[in-house]
This record gives sequence, C-alpha cells and structure tokens, in this order.
Amino acid sequence: MPEVHETRRARLRERVNASGSASALVTRPANVRYLTGVAPPGAVLLLGRAEDLLVHGITPGAQAAGATAAADGRPDAALRVHMLPSPGGDPAVAAAGLAAAQGTDSLAVEEHHLTVARHRAIGSVAPALRLADVGGAVEQLRVTKDEEEISCLRIGAEIADQALGELLESILVGRTERHLALELERRLVDHGADGPAFRTSVGTGPNSGRRGHRPTDRRVEEGDFLSVCLGATYHGYRCEVGRTFVIGTSPADWQIELYDLVFASQRAGREALVPGAAYRDVDRAARQVLDSAGYTEGLPESTGHGVGLEIDEEPQLAPAAMGKLDACVPVTVEPGVHLPGRGGVRIDDTLVVRPEADGGPELLTITTKELLAL
Amino acid sequence: MPEVHETRRARLRERVNASGSASALVTRPANVRYLTGVAPPGAVLLLGRAEDLLVHGITPGAQAAGATAAADGRPDAALRVHMLPSPGGDPAVAAAGLAAAQGTDSLAVEEHHLTVARHRAIGSVAPALRLADVGGAVEQLRVTKDEEEISCLRIGAEIADQALGELLESILVGRTERHLALELERRLVDHGADGPAFRTSVGTGPNSGRRGHRPTDRRVEEGDFLSVCLGATYHGYRCEVGRTFVIGTSPADWQIELYDLVFASQRAGREALVPGAAYRDVDRAARQVLDSAGYTEGLPESTGHGVGLEIDEEPQLAPAAMGKLDACVPVTVEPGVHLPGRGGVRIDDTLVVRPEADGGPELLTITTKELLAL
Repeated sequence: MPEVHETRRARLRERVNASGSASALVTRPANVRYLTGVAPPGAVLLLGRAEDLLVHGITPGAQAAGATAAADGRPDAALRVHMLPSPGGDPAVAAAGLAAAQGTDSLAVEEHHLTVARHRAIGSVAPALRLADVGGAVEQLRVTKDEEEISCLRIGAEIADQALGELLESILVGRTERHLALELERRLVDHGADGPAFRTSVGTGPNSGRRGHRPTDRRVEEGDFLSVCLGATYHGYRCEVGRTFVIGTSPADWQIELYDLVFASQRAGREALVPGAAYRDVDRAARQVLDSAGYTEGLPESTGHGVGLEIDEEPQLAPAAMGKLDACVPVTVEPGVHLPGRGGVRIDDTLVVRPEADGGPELLTITTKELLAL
Repeated sequence: MPEVHETRRARLRERVNASGSASALVTRPANVRYLTGVAPPGAVLLLGRAEDLLVHGITPGAQAAGATAAADGRPDAALRVHMLPSPGGDPAVAAAGLAAAQGTDSLAVEEHHLTVARHRAIGSVAPALRLADVGGAVEQLRVTKDEEEISCLRIGAEIADQALGELLESILVGRTERHLALELERRLVDHGADGPAFRTSVGTGPNSGRRGHRPTDRRVEEGDFLSVCLGATYHGYRCEVGRTFVIGTSPADWQIELYDLVFASQRAGREALVPGAAYRDVDRAARQVLDSAGYTEGLPESTGHGVGLEIDEEPQLAPAAMGKLDACVPVTVEPGVHLPGRGGVRIDDTLVVRPEADGGPELLTITTKELLAL
C-alpha cells in the first residue's frame, strides 16, 4: 500500500503531466511538508521524471535540520534525500540542475512562491529547461483533508479550548493583554501543542473585537469587553478559536446587543457550511446579518478561511471567492464588529464541513459561545 | 532638517538613479520599515519620480494595520500614504501602476524578494514599464547602523541579559527545554521587549550546543550541559545572546576542555572585530581555534552575522564572504561545537564594531562567559 505522501505526490504528478510538464519543483515550505512529511528548513521537492528528490542544503543548522526531519517523521521509501555537497548553495537551483540531468525538458515551478532572482538562477544553471508554472496545484490538493489530518486539527482544537478554559478560571482584572497572551501560549505548550498556531491576540476595552490585534500593555478593567483569539499547532496542523467575554457582573445593553448580533452572524455562517455551498454564500450568510443591522463599514474582507498546515489557507470565505465547499474541508467562521473607541466582539470557530447525513458541520472548538461575564 | 527615513530614501534614490532607474519598488518588509519607519502588513514603498508613496491594501486587518503603523511611528511628512480603494488588490501591483502613471519608464524591483507571479502581474498592469533589479541595495544601506539604531539593540541586549540572569537564579533540574524557553520569552516581554527576536533555543544534555535547536520535552539533568540562545526585539531591532552552563557542582574534564576551546574561539572572533577587517578573516580567527583542535567536522557555515531589523542580516562572517567591516556594524560572534550523542557548547554575543580609539568592539550582551556550574 503506498504511503500517504507518495499518494499525494502521485496526484500532483498527474496534474503536472496533464499540464505538459514532466517534472515539478515545489519550494513553498508547507507544500514540501504536505508532499513529503518532513520539513528541513529550506528544503525543496523535485517531483522528478525518474524519482522524487528532497533536496536540502548545508545550512547553519545542518545537523538541526536532520533532527527536525527526524522529529517530524521520516521520508517515505519512494523519496530520495539529496543533501548539497557544499555550503551556501540554493536547493532550488540544485534541484533544477538535477532535473535537467534526468533529461527533463519542462519544469513546473511555484511562481507564486519562487522569487524572480531564484527563477533567473535556475534559468542560468539549466538554460535548456523550459520553466512553466504549477500555480496553486499543491494548495488545491491541500484543501480537502483526510481523517488523519482532521484528527490533528481536532487535538489542536482541544488543546486551545483547554488553554482558554483555564485562563477563564483565573483572575483577569488588572492583567495586561501581553501577559494574558503569553500565559495562553504557555498553556498551549503545556498541553502538548508544538507551539501557538499564530500570534495569540488578546484585546481589552477599545482594543476588543479587532481582528489580529497585537497585545499591548493595556490592563483588563471592569466593564471591558475582552476578546481572545488563539490556536494550537499539533503535528504541524493549525486551528483557531476566538471568543469575547465581558469583565464584571453585568454587561451594558450595547454590549449585549452587539454580542447577540455577532453571535447570530457567526451562527448563520456555521449553518451555511454544507458540502456544495459556494464560498461566497457562506460569507454572505454571516455578513448579511451584520449588514442588515447597519454595520456596513469596517467589516472584514472575509468572514472565514481554510486551516491546515498554514493558519490561513484556501478557501477564503469572502464576497469575491470562487468555488464550492467539499466535505472534509476545515474552515474558520469568524465574523466580528469593532466600534472605534469602544471595542467590539469577535467569535471564531474551526469547523469541518460534513454532509448532513453525518450530522452536519463538525465543530472542533467547543468552548461555550454564551456571553460569559467574568 | 530632513527626517531620518527621508535621508535613507534619498540615499537609496541616488543608487537607483545611478543604476539608470527613475523609481524603485521596495517590497521586503524589513526594507519598507527601514525606509519609512512604519510597517503595516503587506505594505510596499514606491520610491517615485515625483513623490514617495507607502501603498497598502485593505487587509483583514485594515484597522489593525493602521494601528500598527501608528504604534511603530508615523510616516514622515515627505511620505504619502495610499490605501487601496478595494479589497484583495496587491499593493506592489498597484504601486507599479502608480509609478507608470507618474511617467516612470524604468522601475527597479527587489528581485530577491518579489515572486515571479507578482513580477508578471506588474508586467501586465504596466506593460510599458521596464523592470530592473535593485538587488540588495537597501540591505546594504542597513548594514551600518546609526546611534539610534544601536541604542535599540543595546536596550534589547540588556533585556535579554536580564531575562537570562533571572532564569539562572531559579531551579533548573527537572524542567523541560520547552518550559525554560517559554519562561525566558515571558521574561523578555516582562522587561519591555516587543517580543522574542527569534524562537528561543534551549538545549540540554545531548541537545546542548546545537545551533537553532528547537526545545523538546527533555528535562534538565545533573551533569548536563545546558545551552541557551535568546534575543529581544526592541523597537523592531533584534539582538541575540547565547551561553552554555553546566548543571551540578563539578563539570567533567571533557566539559571543561570543550568549553575552554569554544571560549577561546569566540574570544578570537571578538578580538578580530576591527573596522577594515575582512568578514572572512573574522570567521577564520574563530574557526581556526576549533580547526586546530581537530574539530573540522560539523562546524557551522558561519561563525557570526549582522543583526538589526532582522535577526540574520548582512554581513555573514563566513569563509566565502566578501567585504570588510565598518565601524557601527553590529554582528554576532557565535562559534560552537556539538558532539553527537554527548552535547556541546555555544557562546554567542552581539557586539558593535568600533575603532580602537573608541575602545574597540562594544559588547552589548554582558552576561558572564565564565563556565557557571548551576
């Protein structure tokens, strides 16, 4: 039975061959990892005519790179590992040279990742090689996950929920956004995460509800909204969860109204997650709840996105996005409203699209979405 | 008096004009920040014929981006800020369009940063524009620092020293590499860092002495070498410090020998830091101490590098590096030896090259380099 990474490479090879190239050069790190299971820094994958080659250089961490590879898993039997003989070489250029030596005449490269300078260097080393564009072919393969991948996301989500739950049991008033963020990241690692999936965001008072807010030295105060967005990386897979709370015993009326609105928007987005739904329709479901309440300004460009080996990957749930959801696609649903000077609300879940017969969308991040007063 | 970023742009403009282009497009984030003082995510700088333009898109964090710009400082008066009117656009492509509209015929781009896909998109939007390569011109400007920049590095180094010093006062035996690394990062932020300058490395026992070692769940044991490498980012500037310690009361003979050797190598490197010294000669000074003791295998590719807005920037102190040190260039000196299965030693300082008349190299990271038994 072929190993999973070998199967993924076979699927990519089909696409590459269909577009007229014999070989492909994969340079984007998450794509290399997806197709090989290993991720030494700077390594590239040559999907060759004769064989598949993981090419990596002697870097400052040559030994460390070997260690990383081992920690992440071992290359499958069908993958040959080629380490550059001398320091300072570019693995992509070396791989192109090896492709030319295998008799390849056309090499598809990731033009959306490869720099102009590397592209030129490849042209100089292998002038007879015709360079084509493989486009986002690997990213497309990555959209639908297998159960092994979903299981990594599920464990990551459990870890994030746990870290968040523990934080909520502690005293919050008087602590800074930065400290809360660091505390959350420490707890993620405590519970077995490889690390945070992205920079943890904690926003208080006027900073609450801002997407991607970078924690400051502002302290939590009575009456604040507190919004938190965090995620765990587990075996390379990244999820996210975001919640907004109120500090103190009784939320103000405007806080309850705003919370209910964002909650309704987020629920509408979640309920729209069915196989076959257009990306833009999921976005519209969440967005129109906010729109119809008069929040047309400052809305996010998208209300959700795919997650996996990267925290923000295909698909985008956005007004101009093209395409339809399939089963087994994990996405976030994360609408929010931020009122300048006052603060706001964001609610963010990671879910997996599942057919209705299987119970509909699978919610990975199960922290309560009631408005908690802490 | 022209503002510092304006002066930096004037110097770049001279180089760009001298190489035959009227305008330049700067896309590498650290370069954009160096030339404008601000760093909204995805923003690019058009060094235009008529005026300089910071172009940024409406991103998921349009508001957050504005907030970041404000937090990092405000654009100088000579810089005009242009926000894209609609979401999803590429600021680099938009900037090229604006350059063409200004009547520019040749635009120098950062071919070592720009992807092939973006380069092509620029070609489509502005087909009459001749695209040239600005190369590493901005990186070259960044090599020599002004006293303001050095002062940020100095504060960052103090913070890192403080975090490290506090850790050494705590109980270490039984704690994992991961926990020690997180604890250090928390302390960096406690003491006012923007954040860690890079992923903190903590290696114990057989993992000690490995450059870039990623912390594992291994616990500190009696008799271990413990090596730590960390750095603070302060106002965007990144420094690093690395030390190796022994756990327990009496280091073994091999540990003392290895430590003394790496210490001698590191001192030789530090002492070679004089204005006018060739990069490779500094490297050779550190390297030959290890070489002559028989450690020829597995040595790092470089024994030091520049630091600044990025943790690893020009110059490289390496055997094949071309160029000579100037005064006011901050570099690391960080030789190390790792013995597979046993562990090793790394000692890493950040220093600023200064003329002998000014007292020679300025040591920013002042944590002791005695072999401490903890």
